Amino acid sequence: MAIKRVGILTGGGDCSGLNAVIRSVTRSAIIKHNWHVIGIEDGFEGLLENRTQPLTVRSTRDILPLGGTVIGTTNKGNLFAYRRVLPDGTLATEDRSKEAIDNFNRMGLDCLFVVGGEGTQEIGFKLHQAGCPVIGIPKTIDNDLYGTDYTFGFQTAVQVAVDALDRLTTTGKSHQRVMILEVMGRNAGWIALESGIAGGAHIILIPEIPYDLEKVEEKVRLRAEGGSPFSIIVVGEGAREMGGEQIVSAAAGTRLQGVAQLGGVGNYIAGRLGRNLDLEVRCTVLGHVQRGGTPTSFDRLLGTRLGHCAVEAACQGEFGKLVALKSLEVVLVPLDECAGKVRTVPPGHQLVTCAEAIGISLGRA
Amino acid sequence: MAIKRVGILTGGGDCSGLNAVIRSVTRSAIIKHNWHVIGIEDGFEGLLENRTQPLTVRSTRDILPLGGTVIGTTNKGNLFAYRRVLPDGTLATEDRSKEAIDNFNRMGLDCLFVVGGEGTQEIGFKLHQAGCPVIGIPKTIDNDLYGTDYTFGFQTAVQVAVDALDRLTTTGKSHQRVMILEVMGRNAGWIALESGIAGGAHIILIPEIPYDLEKVEEKVRLRAEGGSPFSIIVVGEGAREMGGEQIVSAAAGTRLQGVAQLGGVGNYIAGRLGRNLDLEVRCTVLGHVQRGGTPTSFDRLLGTRLGHCAVEAACQGEFGKLVALKSLEVVLVPLDECAGKVRTVPPGHQLVTCAEAIGISLGRA
Amino acid sequence: MAIKRVGILTGGGDCSGLNAVIRSVTRSAIIKHNWHVIGIEDGFEGLLENRTQPLTVRSTRDILPLGGTVIGTTNKGNLFAYRRVLPDGTLATEDRSKEAIDNFNRMGLDCLFVVGGEGTQEIGFKLHQAGCPVIGIPKTIDNDLYGTDYTFGFQTAVQVAVDALDRLTTTGKSHQRVMILEVMGRNAGWIALESGIAGGAHIILIPEIPYDLEKVEEKVRLRAEGGSPFSIIVVGEGAREMGGEQIVSAAAGTRLQGVAQLGGVGNYIAGRLGRNLDLEVRCTVLGHVQRGGTPTSFDRLLGTRLGHCAVEAACQGEFGKLVALKSLEVVLVPLDECAGKVRTVPPGHQLVTCAEAIGISLGRA
Amino acid sequence: MAIKRVGILTGGGDCSGLNAVIRSVTRSAIIKHNWHVIGIEDGFEGLLENRTQPLTVRSTRDILPLGGTVIGTTNKGNLFAYRRVLPDGTLATEDRSKEAIDNFNRMGLDCLFVVGGEGTQEIGFKLHQAGCPVIGIPKTIDNDLYGTDYTFGFQTAVQVAVDALDRLTTTGKSHQRVMILEVMGRNAGWIALESGIAGGAHIILIPEIPYDLEKVEEKVRLRAEGGSPFSIIVVGEGAREMGGEQIVSAAAGTRLQGVAQLGGVGNYIAGRLGRNLDLEVRCTVLGHVQRGGTPTSFDRLLGTRLGHCAVEAACQGEFGKLVALKSLEVVLVPLDECAGKVRTVPPGHQLVTCAEAIGISLGRA
Repeated sequence: MAIKRVGILTGGGDCSGLNAVIRSVTRSAIIKHNWHVIGIEDGFEGLLENRTQPLTVRSTRDILPLGGTVIGTTNKGNLFAYRRVLPDGTLATEDRSKEAIDNFNRMGLDCLFVVGGEGTQEIGFKLHQAGCPVIGIPKTIDNDLYGTDYTFGFQTAVQVAVDALDRLTTTGKSHQRVMILEVMGRNAGWIALESGIAGGAHIILIPEIPYDLEKVEEKVRLRAEGGSPFSIIVVGEGAREMGGEQIVSAAAGTRLQGVAQLGGVGNYIAGRLGRNLDLEVRCTVLGHVQRGGTPTSFDRLLGTRLGHCAVEAACQGEFGKLVALKSLEVVLVPLDECAGKVRTVPPGHQLVTCAEAIGISLGRA
Repeated sequence: MAIKRVGILTGGGDCSGLNAVIRSVTRSAIIKHNWHVIGIEDGFEGLLENRTQPLTVRSTRDILPLGGTVIGTTNKGNLFAYRRVLPDGTLATEDRSKEAIDNFNRMGLDCLFVVGGEGTQEIGFKLHQAGCPVIGIPKTIDNDLYGTDYTFGFQTAVQVAVDALDRLTTTGKSHQRVMILEVMGRNAGWIALESGIAGGAHIILIPEIPYDLEKVEEKVRLRAEGGSPFSIIVVGEGAREMGGEQIVSAAAGTRLQGVAQLGGVGNYIAGRLGRNLDLEVRCTVLGHVQRGGTPTSFDRLLGTRLGHCAVEAACQGEFGKLVALKSLEVVLVPLDECAGKVRTVPPGHQLVTCAEAIGISLGRA
Repeated sequence: MAIKRVGILTGGGDCSGLNAVIRSVTRSAIIKHNWHVIGIEDGFEGLLENRTQPLTVRSTRDILPLGGTVIGTTNKGNLFAYRRVLPDGTLATEDRSKEAIDNFNRMGLDCLFVVGGEGTQEIGFKLHQAGCPVIGIPKTIDNDLYGTDYTFGFQTAVQVAVDALDRLTTTGKSHQRVMILEVMGRNAGWIALESGIAGGAHIILIPEIPYDLEKVEEKVRLRAEGGSPFSIIVVGEGAREMGGEQIVSAAAGTRLQGVAQLGGVGNYIAGRLGRNLDLEVRCTVLGHVQRGGTPTSFDRLLGTRLGHCAVEAACQGEFGKLVALKSLEVVLVPLDECAGKVRTVPPGHQLVTCAEAIGISLGRA
Repeated sequence: MAIKRVGILTGGGDCSGLNAVIRSVTRSAIIKHNWHVIGIEDGFEGLLENRTQPLTVRSTRDILPLGGTVIGTTNKGNLFAYRRVLPDGTLATEDRSKEAIDNFNRMGLDCLFVVGGEGTQEIGFKLHQAGCPVIGIPKTIDNDLYGTDYTFGFQTAVQVAVDALDRLTTTGKSHQRVMILEVMGRNAGWIALESGIAGGAHIILIPEIPYDLEKVEEKVRLRAEGGSPFSIIVVGEGAREMGGEQIVSAAAGTRLQGVAQLGGVGNYIAGRLGRNLDLEVRCTVLGHVQRGGTPTSFDRLLGTRLGHCAVEAACQGEFGKLVALKSLEVVLVPLDECAGKVRTVPPGHQLVTCAEAIGISLGRA
């Protein structure tokens, strides 16, 4: 079947490099293959609501350096378990995948490019099983997707975190303070680990290795005794205390049950250290600045390559596959090998060994 | 009296450009005048405790691009009302200025360069009145010091805030969210106002103009109705609601009385907007990343100029003066004209008029 | 006369901040005054050729962080001495100002905002004298315009140069090389002087102070003898040797008469130093990267303020004026006081004194 | 044999990330293994001249974000063919490797970490064959070393080039100009290719694919006819015209035979295009700013990982090996597999295909 018309959507949290993908898919499809390209707005929501925009070489001009996604995204829209508020106020979920596939067909599309993380790819894979020709393009700021070495957006987030660490370090030294930086990473510690090593942190706490607060205090105290009464701590937002629970920081504004939730793990540790040590402790929660903004060159290039290879995969009928970076090549991986799975930091990973060898504490008991 | 030996100290919160001042004072004093330069460590604390380090052309090499201050700083150390914990646990204050002046004399210093904000300059002015030859060099990240057009560190903080706004804007658009950025400025709204205008914010809330939350909501709602369901709000940390109190965000780690305090005004507004509007709202508190890190070229130049002019002022015996930038020239201003005073944003200031003329809401009732 | 419709054009070389002006003029005019705004394309060329585009709040959305000018610019288009190639191949100039004014009237404009440097403002002033209501908005990357403390684009250029100096310095040290950076500034040395001081240069050569190459060599040699066999030299492109001519570097591609012209003053000095000193010398010509790209927060704010104040000036009928930054305020200055004049660095300027006091050589004989 | 004392040297052109390696080797060796670490100054020169400095945790503090190399480097020093000027002025080469090995032994070193590109690794390999226990750490800004996916410094160079492209693009559009950026890459086009794709270039010329100037002109002309009278061209410095020679741009200051050499391939193409097209053409030669300055987070992390793994390799007696990044792991590769070889862009490489698919011209005939 010759492809004539393709759709693309972006799902889940935004990250830097999405526009590079959109532009590359559009240009490859039009310039090389003369296809039509349809942008489906706000992820799967747009597929359910028939909200689309034509994508052309002209309309994707100038978007390469832009953060975010010009076709919008949303965290909602699980087609197979769509949330609906019933008249009596309770929540129910329903399967709306048939609607989606009907719309896909009515739009006259021959292929759907699904750009997103493990949740989005899982929906994409189910759509594929249901008969919709899907190509997955991996996206997650946390770099925790199975099957690909790197996802775009990750390097940009690490760079933003390292820039912040450079700034916090000079303040920490000048004031002899303990500076804590909380970075993204609910399940995986890649951002914390890479930015912590690259930013010269003294302590890095990641979700995969429950921390012992006494070990953290000990490290800070040893540094102070050795003449360095300042320390830099990087904490992944999903880090948790040994024997403790994850402290989930409710995002401000989302109908909070209590302000207390505002303080995530970074502020929790700051509070504990501040009480136990005779040192000033300050915490910065980097938050959304890690997501947005102009991508690093690495992420612009990666997004462009993935977009182009996704178009080639479609051309060859390789549906149900994910385009993935392996070493220096983009390859194809079956969607079901990576959909719905998370790649966390193995406890004996080379990065962990490296961190500990150069004197970084991971807060291990 | 020919000067032979001068001291320099940095007091209060650190900010970008302090090292440019230290380097410039050192180089001007040594290269041009062949003086000795003594760095007094950690502000007035070092003066009380005789902690100093010689500053030389060699020791100040390479510090121009560095954030922070190589001689340390502290928020403590009010010589005239020094806090001490009495044996029974209560706090008392005592006047330790005589000790400080004795140490100053014992160090053989002919002049003291005091780099700091209004609190630090007030102490400097009292020291000057008490017979110690002081030259003030203005420093405050908030740019709220009387007598000078700009203080170094301010432009760097504004640039950091604008970089963050650039990043948040693409995320806000992609997700159709209200993004709030809380920036520094406890009493003065300069950082919020300048970064908000330069960063393309839709709403700017500053301490000087109490905001009406209904007006803020109205603006967001009008934008959504006009097809822009995302908005960018910049909030100075000292902003307060009309008829309300300032919400002081306790810095994490400083022996918190309650976690509730962690949420400053940005998170407070996020919570309110999130409840009242059918939109996602997210708040980022920029915090200490505004203080540290490499200064912008403007702040490196300003710090260098002030340092040099302070040395010239000392050479001419102009003690009790502050070096100040007026238009394109550095001039001398009597210390008592600016010590202990804060320059806030006048309600009819040109920047306020400008902001409102281009459609930015200041949340006025 | 109530204003209903205004035009804006940008002339001369582009610089960062032009879009901030265009956006601010457009928003102020529309949001506050409900005027129509017409963008005239490619400077005065568009006025002669009736090439315009309507400017709206929507069309100027998102342009604040963009370098360049969305309405185009050109170095051509002197209305009063317009160059034309005659049939026999010779060049002639003619006065086309009447055409321009006719077009202005036919467009139904009540005011023309002219954004440009001294050349462009001179044409604007003559148009004003010829009966066209003009408001000038000063623009020059070199900051050499009379009447205003700063022009936008200048701080961005200085920042780009300082970023380059930070990079060159580490290379220079690692290789023990003399690194030369040639920056913009054909007539005025402001960029060289400010970036050189802020970037920690050891030698700064500006057009206003003819340099003695022996003094330059002496400084480099003294540094090497003192244990620092690397030096950083910043050269303004208009710098000239004592008793010598300006070396004008022909821009590549402009129908070169000889490749020899490619080497500007930076490469000239590199060649001379390389022959005379036993050191490696490398020259980098920063060129157009100083012009383009996202403006610093300072330039975005300045552009926005000037745009807004220009609209207010028009509203009050203050034609024939230039909006100018004086200290912290934007004020109005008669156009003829600044048109066609260049503000160079006075030999005894505070910046010069400061540079020399901290040990920077200006290559003076 | 238990290792007690190791040496490290950096050879060839500097690049960002060298200090991350030095710091990581030092910290791993001292903190984990309690070895002594000796920094050999200025590459192999220091080995011949017994110039060293002890490296400690303290002395390598704060160097992680710094560009360059704190132990110096040089392009000279081929131990096996050392250049010497004979009394009669002619040049001769001699084998000084025995001196080097004697010095190595006299310093009491048990291992030599050689950080450098293919030339430096070749010398290292020969030293290893001559009995000196060598571990290679790959370094080349061009990323053209065999055996490793990435070398540090490369991503930083690409980022600097992309930042420049972002700036040049806005200028190009505003003035409707052809902007050329000449980047590093004498033999390999990786920097040009990656930065060109990531920076949105329209034409990319690399050494591996001789360009046809008519095709370049055609592309520019087609764009202009399509309404885009501006184009961005990225040229690797080693690019050459079909049937032509490489135009080598003599570095300024190196005892030029003729100024004509100053113009490299970028300026050559600018001159040709300027003559043949009715468009303004401007060329910027990025030069040394690609080498120096603070490394990106990617390069800081890579340098740190390589340094740590090199120490582990030494610990396990794996001499004669190079530490190399393969996909996500650092592995060991025999030195002779990569010494003296250059990895250029294969004509059918995925990046080439990708570039052409999205409409970038590579100037192919």
